[in-house]
Amino acid sequence: MSNIVVKKLERAPINETPIEIVERKGIGHPDSICDGIAESVSVALCKMYKEHLGVVLHHNTDQVELVGGYAYPKLGGGEMITPIYVLLSGRATMEVLNRETGEITKLPVNSTAVNAAREYLKKTIRNADLERDIIVDCRIGQGSVDLVEVFDRERNAIPHANDTSFGVGHAPLSITEKLVLETERLLNSDAMKSEVPAIGEDIKVMGLREDKKVILTIAMGAVDRYINSCDDYIKVKEIAKQKVEENAKKYAGDFEVEVCINTADDDKDCIFLTVTGTSAEMGDDGSVGRGNRANGLITPFRPMSMEATSGKNPINHIGKIYNILSNIIAEDVAKIEGVQECQIRILSQIGKPINEPKMLSIEIIPAEGFTVEGLNVEIEKVAQKWLDNVQSVTDSIIEGKVGTF
Amino acid sequence: MSNIVVKKLERAPINETPIEIVERKGIGHPDSICDGIAESVSVALCKMYKEHLGVVLHHNTDQVELVGGYAYPKLGGGEMITPIYVLLSGRATMEVLNRETGEITKLPVNSTAVNAAREYLKKTIRNADLERDIIVDCRIGQGSVDLVEVFDRERNAIPHANDTSFGVGHAPLSITEKLVLETERLLNSDAMKSEVPAIGEDIKVMGLREDKKVILTIAMGAVDRYINSCDDYIKVKEIAKQKVEENAKKYAGDFEVEVCINTADDDKDCIFLTVTGTSAEMGDDGSVGRGNRANGLITPFRPMSMEATSGKNPINHIGKIYNILSNIIAEDVAKIEGVQECQIRILSQIGKPINEPKMLSIEIIPAEGFTVEGLNVEIEKVAQKWLDNVQSVTDSIIEGKVGTF
Amino acid sequence: MSNIVVKKLERAPINETPIEIVERKGIGHPDSICDGIAESVSVALCKMYKEHLGVVLHHNTDQVELVGGYAYPKLGGGEMITPIYVLLSGRATMEVLNRETGEITKLPVNSTAVNAAREYLKKTIRNADLERDIIVDCRIGQGSVDLVEVFDRERNAIPHANDTSFGVGHAPLSITEKLVLETERLLNSDAMKSEVPAIGEDIKVMGLREDKKVILTIAMGAVDRYINSCDDYIKVKEIAKQKVEENAKKYAGDFEVEVCINTADDDKDCIFLTVTGTSAEMGDDGSVGRGNRANGLITPFRPMSMEATSGKNPINHIGKIYNILSNIIAEDVAKIEGVQECQIRILSQIGKPINEPKMLSIEIIPAEGFTVEGLNVEIEKVAQKWLDNVQSVTDSIIEGKVGTF
Amino acid sequence: MSNIVVKKLERAPINETPIEIVERKGIGHPDSICDGIAESVSVALCKMYKEHLGVVLHHNTDQVELVGGYAYPKLGGGEMITPIYVLLSGRATMEVLNRETGEITKLPVNSTAVNAAREYLKKTIRNADLERDIIVDCRIGQGSVDLVEVFDRERNAIPHANDTSFGVGHAPLSITEKLVLETERLLNSDAMKSEVPAIGEDIKVMGLREDKKVILTIAMGAVDRYINSCDDYIKVKEIAKQKVEENAKKYAGDFEVEVCINTADDDKDCIFLTVTGTSAEMGDDGSVGRGNRANGLITPFRPMSMEATSGKNPINHIGKIYNILSNIIAEDVAKIEGVQECQIRILSQIGKPINEPKMLSIEIIPAEGFTVEGLNVEIEKVAQKWLDNVQSVTDSIIEGKVGTF
Repeated sequence: MSNIVVKKLERAPINETPIEIVERKGIGHPDSICDGIAESVSVALCKMYKEHLGVVLHHNTDQVELVGGYAYPKLGGGEMITPIYVLLSGRATMEVLNRETGEITKLPVNSTAVNAAREYLKKTIRNADLERDIIVDCRIGQGSVDLVEVFDRERNAIPHANDTSFGVGHAPLSITEKLVLETERLLNSDAMKSEVPAIGEDIKVMGLREDKKVILTIAMGAVDRYINSCDDYIKVKEIAKQKVEENAKKYAGDFEVEVCINTADDDKDCIFLTVTGTSAEMGDDGSVGRGNRANGLITPFRPMSMEATSGKNPINHIGKIYNILSNIIAEDVAKIEGVQECQIRILSQIGKPINEPKMLSIEIIPAEGFTVEGLNVEIEKVAQKWLDNVQSVTDSIIEGKVGTF
Repeated sequence: MSNIVVKKLERAPINETPIEIVERKGIGHPDSICDGIAESVSVALCKMYKEHLGVVLHHNTDQVELVGGYAYPKLGGGEMITPIYVLLSGRATMEVLNRETGEITKLPVNSTAVNAAREYLKKTIRNADLERDIIVDCRIGQGSVDLVEVFDRERNAIPHANDTSFGVGHAPLSITEKLVLETERLLNSDAMKSEVPAIGEDIKVMGLREDKKVILTIAMGAVDRYINSCDDYIKVKEIAKQKVEENAKKYAGDFEVEVCINTADDDKDCIFLTVTGTSAEMGDDGSVGRGNRANGLITPFRPMSMEATSGKNPINHIGKIYNILSNIIAEDVAKIEGVQECQIRILSQIGKPINEPKMLSIEIIPAEGFTVEGLNVEIEKVAQKWLDNVQSVTDSIIEGKVGTF
Repeated sequence: MSNIVVKKLERAPINETPIEIVERKGIGHPDSICDGIAESVSVALCKMYKEHLGVVLHHNTDQVELVGGYAYPKLGGGEMITPIYVLLSGRATMEVLNRETGEITKLPVNSTAVNAAREYLKKTIRNADLERDIIVDCRIGQGSVDLVEVFDRERNAIPHANDTSFGVGHAPLSITEKLVLETERLLNSDAMKSEVPAIGEDIKVMGLREDKKVILTIAMGAVDRYINSCDDYIKVKEIAKQKVEENAKKYAGDFEVEVCINTADDDKDCIFLTVTGTSAEMGDDGSVGRGNRANGLITPFRPMSMEATSGKNPINHIGKIYNILSNIIAEDVAKIEGVQECQIRILSQIGKPINEPKMLSIEIIPAEGFTVEGLNVEIEKVAQKWLDNVQSVTDSIIEGKVGTF
Repeated sequence: MSNIVVKKLERAPINETPIEIVERKGIGHPDSICDGIAESVSVALCKMYKEHLGVVLHHNTDQVELVGGYAYPKLGGGEMITPIYVLLSGRATMEVLNRETGEITKLPVNSTAVNAAREYLKKTIRNADLERDIIVDCRIGQGSVDLVEVFDRERNAIPHANDTSFGVGHAPLSITEKLVLETERLLNSDAMKSEVPAIGEDIKVMGLREDKKVILTIAMGAVDRYINSCDDYIKVKEIAKQKVEENAKKYAGDFEVEVCINTADDDKDCIFLTVTGTSAEMGDDGSVGRGNRANGLITPFRPMSMEATSGKNPINHIGKIYNILSNIIAEDVAKIEGVQECQIRILSQIGKPINEPKMLSIEIIPAEGFTVEGLNVEIEKVAQKWLDNVQSVTDSIIEGKVGTF
């Protein structure tokens, strides 16, 4: 299709650039907690709508505000003083009118949302006691009344873009990006939590690469109940460091990696000790869309979208769908032989079907011996296939299979 | 002591008056839910303060606002649409300053309060799912900074009245009062819930006595998941009615008792069906101190205090202590041979020790063959004994042994 | 009509009883602030409904929770540290469905409520800065969807009682009651505020009468910006005392009156100084229905209803209408020659027209030379006239002409 | 200094790249409203701290959640149904302990914040009635107790970086960037509002440039009270379009500019009509840091920081200071003869003085006839001067002179 444009990406391959900064806010970081709640709520609403009406109704629950609590961590186990407060907001269709019968049916939007948020928190912040440590409040409001018959009629149609907006994505990840992503994944893996339960979920990884050296700076909350002494704490840091270093070898290629954990620790008092494993317990606030982009990373040396992906409706919200789609297409394009790097941008037109973007720009760095012209056709085919199947992206999101932060 | 005054109660014995209205809002009524939460929070704070500091610090948590939810009950089991919202407020000492070290220690007031409220709700509203049906929020604020050493010094002293206020109480209960109280207790007893789980906790009993006939009008929420048909519902009402009638015989003496349950039911649609067993699920709001008085009843034909008893601090809050104390003294006085009825009023003086009320007025109806003058001395002795032991009342409240609503 | 019953009130005239306690929480007391807001909101909603639809729709806004703030009053003018937080809740019809067109119209319930509350606060708490000292939040929820055509059809019908409940009232006020009521009115009058702006609105008056001596104990918040020294403060108290004493002479008859203002003041520090004129600024919480009854007083030696009058809908809520009606009838009955005192109780039957109470009991003390039998007919006529005109009571409430606290 | 690095920017001049997307969310966009409130609150707190203690204490008020309201705009003037709800959160020092006297003083954080937010809203959303259309709530919490003497001691020291983070900035703006920025400024200028009061503040401008053609897509809320017919509405759009086109000529150079306003308007019903001039009135939520970057723009084709600049403390918060500083330095560097474009990145080291960043990277495109090597010294001098005067940046922010969104 004519609105797919393939071009050469006019820069050096990412791993050969002189400097790179990459960050990931782990799942227990206050901003990521909000992202995770927002997406959980959206997924739960999708499910609820489908159960009640067979279709997903309009909603955007990409607004969660986390107000930090107050805690007294202490060696051996402290306590929360003031609970974390989480406000769910956003919009969702709360009632449907059956025009024939004139009956209005309300839908369990708020109770579903509260439930989804609490379940997500229980699963994610393992050491928080949801009965006393976190308050989940809800002010999700109503959009307009949706008419069931309209949705029925359009059930098989391609939804129209909600806005003039765009998504961006790239593949493959740079070495630094992989290192940052996999470091957090390792530290927040079930295996690691079983082995070292003292590692909390609030793990922020910043990777700074200068030429061929990457420094991974990790801020990692430790859980006080598993730590009885400063020695214990130091041991936890040492184990974590060692595991991260080992893991890094898988991704580092010929880059040198240095790992620094909790560099702000002062030898005596000021250690990153927590009751619950997250700094949200002690005054760190969070909200949706201020942390990781759809690919799980913050990459200031790459194009980024400001759109919060988490919590948006997966039916017609460009800010969600095109960011996710960009990454998916980029990954597939990058698998094509001869494509070294791929950068995607998709621009919507408000009111047009989402499979007809105004522009789908694909920039690639061809591998040695390949040219854009030679790869053109295959790349366009991959992109077009995804546009044709855009609703499969929606389905995957609804099933909770797509990461958004 | 000279401020104890014993007088004759100048009216006919209560059971012989022409008319009496008595009401009890059961434990699942929105106002009673708030009373119960308020008192649970206070008891939990007392315990927390004692654990942390050895003394109970200042607090008044007699402010709970319940904003009703929205529900779709249906035969066989419906669902909550919008959760009930519960706001805890009031005052509590949140930090203590150690003047010697200059260190400030915060106390887990809000997390303790939230936890106490949630535990109370779980226990009391058996069919509510605390993970989706009820939001517990907290805005308990700080009073002033309390100084630990001051409390230490005064630990054994008699606290001083916080206000110029009063308490009232009476004994024994009239037949109508007993009928109302015991009807609700029966319907909310564990035995009844096991036998007829469809009976919800929101049970309001109004007793109207005209001469020797008592009509007990009962509004009783039924829990939808245990009721599959209108017939089921009718059966539940019939069983309840029969049980109440049986139970009433124990208390009715020679009074005739008529029992009416859910009189507003319309044969077809409008039955009192609930998801959770309380009308709080469907827009009925509640707050502290608007329902039962300290003896568990609303008795507009008797003197009543407007003070909310639940949630007030049990150390020096007259509105709590004197209302409870009045009932306790009245019960003991009523046990004295020759006392047919007893009515107590205790008036405080702000700033004076709580065992030195400005006035403790005892009005009695002597039994036939007895006189106030003859009973005077013994009655005063009973009253004085309780004033001397006023702190045992405080202790019982702290231990959660005293009913407040 | 047969359900109006006139009887003799079997007690001594109120002014001849040995003891009486009467209290009034002034308009600036946290509980009264809530009552006033609740009623303002209801009146504003009535007006809004009439403007939009020509009829008053269902609502009960008798739920307001005030969470006290934190203030630093000081001589010459201090400041609020943490604003007072006011939560409006309750129920109101938020949308109407036109069955013919199938259109749903939303009504400005929440914005009207917030506006009414803020306007009321501005008018009532003169020294509070609504831009920084008070937060007004709103969680008024929806009841069920009301159908306009139903209301239209029934517009001229007598509404049916919403509950089995009752109202009580009496007249005339006792001397002590008048003293308490008029003392607060004087201190909160425009004239007084112009003359002595330092007198805040939070004025609690307690009258304790023993035989023929009445002690008026007044707690009165002073406004710091008008007070530059302890001497100023003492002068304000002296003027207030003198004015109250003068005013008391009009109502005291041959009773002796003693006036005590701010007895808890300690000569040095602990004076009742405020920034805004209300203790709500410093941790005193409030809610609806915990203070004055419909006649403006708390009278524990008289029958009282526990029902909150303020904020309830004036169309069919017995807890509001019958309490107000009882006082109105009592006043009219008390004007009949030969009636010394009158005590009214009206009992409703849920689902029956509000002009057909189950029982309207009138108890009187006849003046010397009169009998119940002789006054019977005229009294019944007065009562029946009010039942016939019960909707005029509703109209007066809607117009904001009836006091509710 | 050795940590200032000047390099060549390896890309074509921005105006010569094939495509560019630039967006600005105008001051009335829900996200920008939150940014503006957050920054206003921070500026007000700075002022309050200085007045009370002479120094700015720790705070981060970069958390504002706006929950959209519900409105019925209509030609000639509609009304708000449900107010917009604004929750202020974040952290601020709320009390100081004087170690010598042991006295704790609370600071008016919450009342100052509420006041600042309301004043900002009044000024910014001209057509909103703060008495009924917007609720401002506050849950700003306490960090830790700050000790005044510590701040005193360090008053003149350079603050230390609060985090390992970075800022980015560039200059000069591209033509497309200027067009977008100046279009919003024009439409939200006082002059424009006087001339065409129907133009609301919620104006989103998206600029899409392909080669030498820029399409400016403008979403612009119109204020209903100034619009009596569809013709009026169309006229407002036409005037706006014409003004924007005229204005664009100043910035467009040889680029062609096309202006589209409210393209989603359907000729009949679906026009962008509002009561208050912002989509926040009808369900559009907002929060801090999700819109414009520190330079007022969203530029996905440029490096961007994810950090929210608005509301952060201007003393030591890298996410604020370095983003602003980057732009300031870039502007000064771009003024140097021979510098065509400049891109800055500043990377902090947690715990190090903020005038000693880990790296200050300056990338430039030299003008024809110039080289990086030749410009090196002068560029470094400019950068170093700003590092040496970093506190003047702080001062400007405190004085409210620096834009943050």
